[in-house]
Amino acid sequence: MARAERIVHSIGSVGAYSHSQGILAVRETIAKYIERRDGVPAQPNSIFLTNGASDAVTRVLECIITDKNIGVMIPIPQYPLYSALTSLLNGSSVPYYLDEAGDWSLKMAELERAINEARLKNVDVRAICIINPGNPTGNCFSRDAMRDIVTFCKQNRLILLADEVYQMNVYGERPFVSARQVAFEMDADIEVISFNSISKGLVGECGHRGGYYECYNLDPFVIEQFYKQASICLCSNVPGQILMSLMVDPPRAGEQSYERWRDETAEIWASLKRRAEKLQSALVSMTDVTCNVAAGAMYLFPKISFPERLMEHARLLDKQPDEVYAMELLNATGIVNIFEVLIL
Amino acid sequence: MARAERIVHSIGSVGAYSHSQGILAVRETIAKYIERRDGVPAQPNSIFLTNGASDAVTRVLECIITDKNIGVMIPIPQYPLYSALTSLLNGSSVPYYLDEAGDWSLKMAELERAINEARLKNVDVRAICIINPGNPTGNCFSRDAMRDIVTFCKQNRLILLADEVYQMNVYGERPFVSARQVAFEMDADIEVISFNSISKGLVGECGHRGGYYECYNLDPFVIEQFYKQASICLCSNVPGQILMSLMVDPPRAGEQSYERWRDETAEIWASLKRRAEKLQSALVSMTDVTCNVAAGAMYLFPKISFPERLMEHARLLDKQPDEVYAMELLNATGIVNIFEVLIL
Repeated sequence: MARAERIVHSIGSVGAYSHSQGILAVRETIAKYIERRDGVPAQPNSIFLTNGASDAVTRVLECIITDKNIGVMIPIPQYPLYSALTSLLNGSSVPYYLDEAGDWSLKMAELERAINEARLKNVDVRAICIINPGNPTGNCFSRDAMRDIVTFCKQNRLILLADEVYQMNVYGERPFVSARQVAFEMDADIEVISFNSISKGLVGECGHRGGYYECYNLDPFVIEQFYKQASICLCSNVPGQILMSLMVDPPRAGEQSYERWRDETAEIWASLKRRAEKLQSALVSMTDVTCNVAAGAMYLFPKISFPERLMEHARLLDKQPDEVYAMELLNATGIVNIFEVLIL
Repeated sequence: MARAERIVHSIGSVGAYSHSQGILAVRETIAKYIERRDGVPAQPNSIFLTNGASDAVTRVLECIITDKNIGVMIPIPQYPLYSALTSLLNGSSVPYYLDEAGDWSLKMAELERAINEARLKNVDVRAICIINPGNPTGNCFSRDAMRDIVTFCKQNRLILLADEVYQMNVYGERPFVSARQVAFEMDADIEVISFNSISKGLVGECGHRGGYYECYNLDPFVIEQFYKQASICLCSNVPGQILMSLMVDPPRAGEQSYERWRDETAEIWASLKRRAEKLQSALVSMTDVTCNVAAGAMYLFPKISFPERLMEHARLLDKQPDEVYAMELLNATGIVNIFEVLIL
């Protein structure tokens, strides 16, 4: 009740347009959350509330991709938002492969290969996207991996786009480390834009479409352009903004609803972890299937090695083996999404 | 309560993603509203729910403007969404002037002038936008004016983008006539995309960001592309979708909440009409000010003729007279928005 009163007081009404960048009180709450999380200052003026993280990524890529030779590095396997938007905006996707053998982390050599190949094709690479914790790989980057990415951005003058929507979904011993925290620690003069969403974490309020992007070390002129862009569509939906503030500022010990919040979220977290472990054990117990342990997010990305019999079966059908396998799995079981990225 | 139960039954939860095009039950409700309004069939599959009408216009223009020589005809005075989006999407704005002397209606000769001038500059004009009832002009197009627009679209193979977000805000004797209804009556083979929003009408729930666009006579292939585009950002916010369905399907005579709804909306409507009339009378009672009667929407667009003294004052300051007037009005009274379009 106290929280609701405070919010109503700060916004007046959920039925009115808010500030185009988002309700100031909400941006202040988010800035404090980021500071608590990273130990690095954050500014309300560098935060933009959006209709979910997809809307946030859309807006940022819209500003980066101004010509078709402008490239954005995208991890493979990826969440298809990035390649879809890059196509829609007539930009160039520059894929880099995550290292399955290394727990879906990344290797500097692979980043170098990807950017050099793109540059040979005259692609002007401006940004790199990372998804941490990983969708669909379920990895969680170590601090060392994050340092490598920051170094790579610095060397190549890239904007670091950090999709960190699963930052509250970490199940292993490796903690979530934000891109901006590492950039700050390394005193690296790079630009970081990080994304968050109410559709993930332990609340998962997808239908309300709440999200934000936070800008670290961006030129104030760019922030002004983001503001101008945000004002075209007036504001993101106000209930989604409020839910965002609730997600990053949960009840604290001593407050009336603390115990209930703590118990409910602990149970959801334990359930997500239990299911990730159970599914991973089931997958690796199968013949010819390997799968990394889920360190975070809500995904596992198994690898299935086909026996020679399937390969021959596919040759006889004059089809690709993975297509044959995926279609036969679909027809036999109804399972479809697991192969999405592979088929693409 | 009955409505809430029906909606919850059809969607499961407001916390989950909906169909990317919008909740089917909501699209069915909107289709029935359009049919009742126009006496012309509408299909749920041709309706896309969005985060407000601005989001809807963004998506549609994103699909139309694929190259910088592609032009969109935009009324002047206009609501700045259209020119802002056309700039953002690197397209070409093709302005046409509304006829102040004719109650802010339009003249075929002016439409011809605008399109011919654009074509001489090699602009490939693909669409024309109309705002009816008008923002910021407060006009409401007659059926004859609508027939002219439809004819113009047919002759020039233009998509008609009908911003009809103020369709429930009509104060005079001239009723709102939808673009699609006129296209249907004339049996004109043109494509119409119309926009609506919960931010207007008599509910004005701006903060919830609900809207839709409805496609009339579009190629099914285009609808498929719109669907693909909608799926990139998963769905529009679910509470906004629900509010959209409530707006277009209010309580009916015999239902428990009918009287209250009828009285409240009648009062809001009367208040909007009273204020429009009061302000218009006040404006025209001023020296050197003319202003058309508000037929619809929520705006008046007065014309102020400057006396020679102001013109000379501006010449001495080496500034434009309207800039001087606007700044002095701002400093003296705090009024700013009234001159927005003029200054732009």
